[in-house]
Amino acid sequence: MKIALDAMGGDYAPPVAVEGGVWAAREYGIEVILIGREGDVQRELAKYDTSGLSVPIVHASQVIEMEEHPAAAVKAKQDSSMVVGMDLVKRGEADVFVSAGNSGGVMAAALFRLGRIRGIKRPALSTIYPTTTGLCFMLDVGANTDCKPEYLLQFAYMGVAYAERVLGIVNPRVGIVSNGEEETKGSILVQEAHQMLKKSGLNFIGNVEGKDIPAGMADVVVTDGFTGNVIAKLSEGLATSLLGIIKEEVKKSPLATVGALLSKPAFDKVKKRLDYAEFGGAPLLGVDGVVIVAHGRSNAKAIKNAIGVARQAVEGRMVEIIKEGITGGLKIKEES
Amino acid sequence: MKIALDAMGGDYAPPVAVEGGVWAAREYGIEVILIGREGDVQRELAKYDTSGLSVPIVHASQVIEMEEHPAAAVKAKQDSSMVVGMDLVKRGEADVFVSAGNSGGVMAAALFRLGRIRGIKRPALSTIYPTTTGLCFMLDVGANTDCKPEYLLQFAYMGVAYAERVLGIVNPRVGIVSNGEEETKGSILVQEAHQMLKKSGLNFIGNVEGKDIPAGMADVVVTDGFTGNVIAKLSEGLATSLLGIIKEEVKKSPLATVGALLSKPAFDKVKKRLDYAEFGGAPLLGVDGVVIVAHGRSNAKAIKNAIGVARQAVEGRMVEIIKEGITGGLKIKEES
Repeated sequence: MKIALDAMGGDYAPPVAVEGGVWAAREYGIEVILIGREGDVQRELAKYDTSGLSVPIVHASQVIEMEEHPAAAVKAKQDSSMVVGMDLVKRGEADVFVSAGNSGGVMAAALFRLGRIRGIKRPALSTIYPTTTGLCFMLDVGANTDCKPEYLLQFAYMGVAYAERVLGIVNPRVGIVSNGEEETKGSILVQEAHQMLKKSGLNFIGNVEGKDIPAGMADVVVTDGFTGNVIAKLSEGLATSLLGIIKEEVKKSPLATVGALLSKPAFDKVKKRLDYAEFGGAPLLGVDGVVIVAHGRSNAKAIKNAIGVARQAVEGRMVEIIKEGITGGLKIKEES
Repeated sequence: MKIALDAMGGDYAPPVAVEGGVWAAREYGIEVILIGREGDVQRELAKYDTSGLSVPIVHASQVIEMEEHPAAAVKAKQDSSMVVGMDLVKRGEADVFVSAGNSGGVMAAALFRLGRIRGIKRPALSTIYPTTTGLCFMLDVGANTDCKPEYLLQFAYMGVAYAERVLGIVNPRVGIVSNGEEETKGSILVQEAHQMLKKSGLNFIGNVEGKDIPAGMADVVVTDGFTGNVIAKLSEGLATSLLGIIKEEVKKSPLATVGALLSKPAFDKVKKRLDYAEFGGAPLLGVDGVVIVAHGRSNAKAIKNAIGVARQAVEGRMVEIIKEGITGGLKIKEES
């Protein structure tokens, strides 16, 4: 298997991306193609003992920065690591592209170079969301701010395909984010999508409220990219804030400090459960190629784990499965 | 000052509502009118020593339950505690109505009986949101699932009026919830509202992302009722889940248990900072009367504190202030 890694993508690239890439090549015994400015990447690579590893460099002279406008940047920078990486996948020279860079840029590059899967109206960005009972798979988390009901239906089909075949969740429970349990609750968009989901043939459990997501009520959580983005960022921010407040309060008392030292193992476990580095990355679903998006603040471990996710997605035949799922889904819809 | 309290509203009513009402009458030295089924309320009231307190009962034979459809229930139950309470405010026999009941029902009863403030397109449900630096005031959290940009502008004016005059926040920073910092980010609704807010004359700091809300980046957070509801419920659920996970992990190790005992004071402080009972309730803004909505799961302390909020809102001349703010706001808009 060949993984194309955006060596210039993420807040701490290229050092952290290269470190994670080398780590993954060693841990998984796979080829990791490092894409970026050859000099910069070579300099980082020289820090590691890569004997016996397959970590070739493919030169790309440009970089799409985090704050750039996605579509404009992709059009202007045809020799960027993102565009070069997508082209490797397109030509079959890599099985998957992994990037911790500007997620809108990854989406735009994927759309321009790989295109959508036939029948998919809008690709979606996904994320793995840690819950009290394990995890759930949420989409869209930012690709499509204004959606139509049929997009949400397709997100559900794609999410279920991924959850079943890559994450190994049996008969995943699908929920749609709303502001109340009853099917009459929700925006016009959500109410219409709810009715479509009821007839979808999926294991649809209905509306999930904000509180139901961290409680693990659904395995696949469907929402528009605006709401999903707010949920994902709020959850990360709130978890960080809460752990910060607890730490701060604990520090205020000398006795509490002893307490904190003693309960540190428990805290570390909680942090690990919430740490996006453990999940690594999540797929861009609906484009005609396997693309994994990692967190912009990814450390080396997160990059390594994102490559692990990439490997699972390729082995799980992610794109083929979605194609089959969509066909199945459309069939069910036509029959109903 | 006379407070009309929905003695039948909330998951634990009437016992908890009556307890909170008596508590508030004693603590604030004000009249608390208990509205509900006379026999039920009298039975609860008999449990307390009310000598020297002013806690009259006003009979209302019906109750709007938590799961009822708001508008239908209000129309069908004209002798419900909510409708009777609104009528007391309407006739000037009470200064404010407080309820922990079905919030949609409170909204519907307020709209039918008190009506909107002239010039206000849509009333909004608000909430006090605890942040790492203190608190922020967020609206709408559920009254209007599908909004127009001008509704969000009005929510901002009302929110600022309340934050300044009742919460005592000087020149409150206003943010609009979006999926990115840049003003080009967001749904069509948010992008249009952003442009209006820029010209509003308010202290508008631009878009706030999910992570910025718990971090306390804005004092007044404006959003549509769908997103606001998801944010409020997600935050409450996530905080509960997180504290639960920490507790669970702490329990797993004998040493950690000692640690937990020692750091308990810190945990208790964190819980207190997150506890909605401390905030009590938040106003329904934009209706022509002061109405405070408390959490459905309110305990007696939350009811007591909601009455405290009601008192502040009346003293702060909430309705008059909004009327003035709206006038000012509309002026600014016309000039721009």
